[in-house]
Amino acid sequence: MQRNSPKSRPGGRAARTKTATFQAVAELVAEKGHGAVSMTDVAERAGVAATSLYRRWGDIGSLIREVAVEQLMRDYPIPDTGSIEGDLRQWARSIALTLSRPEGSSFFRAFVATATPTHAGTVAPPEALARRIEQIEQMLARANARGERALAVDDVIDFLLAPLFVRALFGTPLDEEAAEALAERLLKRC
Amino acid sequence: MQRNSPKSRPGGRAARTKTATFQAVAELVAEKGHGAVSMTDVAERAGVAATSLYRRWGDIGSLIREVAVEQLMRDYPIPDTGSIEGDLRQWARSIALTLSRPEGSSFFRAFVATATPTHAGTVAPPEALARRIEQIEQMLARANARGERALAVDDVIDFLLAPLFVRALFGTPLDEEAAEALAERLLKRC
Repeated sequence: MQRNSPKSRPGGRAARTKTATFQAVAELVAEKGHGAVSMTDVAERAGVAATSLYRRWGDIGSLIREVAVEQLMRDYPIPDTGSIEGDLRQWARSIALTLSRPEGSSFFRAFVATATPTHAGTVAPPEALARRIEQIEQMLARANARGERALAVDDVIDFLLAPLFVRALFGTPLDEEAAEALAERLLKRC
Repeated sequence: MQRNSPKSRPGGRAARTKTATFQAVAELVAEKGHGAVSMTDVAERAGVAATSLYRRWGDIGSLIREVAVEQLMRDYPIPDTGSIEGDLRQWARSIALTLSRPEGSSFFRAFVATATPTHAGTVAPPEALARRIEQIEQMLARANARGERALAVDDVIDFLLAPLFVRALFGTPLDEEAAEALAERLLKRC
């Protein structure tokens, strides 16, 4: 028996609304910056009633955050090149490539800006970082299974992700070469 | 001859307005988060006409950014302990201490959120990072003059500031011990 409610049917009305809404948010954030986008703008662009958007996502901050997380995760697939060296280099390059594009850095900025303020050390890391940590763990577990040297997840965050993120936020040089150099230094040092 | 215009006289009306305004912004950002603070809120709290605020700072984003930069610079004085090791450890500790307090992380988040979106590599780093770079340069020049080993400014940013900033943004552990460990690893590695 097939379920037929619009909410669960893939390709149904709810799914189409989500696709149109996310697309509208993505365009508007890239065009105007996250701070200038309102629910009304999104409703107009997506051809959806603003009341539906409020009912489903609560407020513009939550909606933008959800789109930002989806975009950021989609843009960084986890590589599997057969060596930790290859994986880290390729992963670093793909992150740099995404964050150096205007849409990529707008989303990263939107993600940071709309993240719930946290008191350091007292809460679990936010969803997007938690998912990124899972990716790193998979990469390192494969390296381990191949008998390659062990890296710590924290070192990958501190010495590879953090410099890439901060370069994106502050607009300092961020290219694939710089990303590879960071990956190489991480591997040399650990 | 003394200039007597209210704008330039320290302690004059313009200075008092600025102090009251900045104080109001600091309180409101810590209470509500930067995204929820409006010019009207600031005007009410500071006892200043909203029109004066618009005239002087343009919009709420610019005002919050100016206060954030002032707060962030005031909170990180540049240490001069007599050795690069001591300087880096103390500087890292003071940054961690500031960013682990709720007001400190709200301001850092506000600063990031209101920064003008930049295309990586095509523009000068924003004011707050430029001033931070000057501080690092002074610290490293003193180390150089004492005949201590040379560190690169970029390494201090990538491997000390970036991990501290990212921990503050994502709410992962950020304490003085973690900060000292980062400073130590930077010194060992370069």
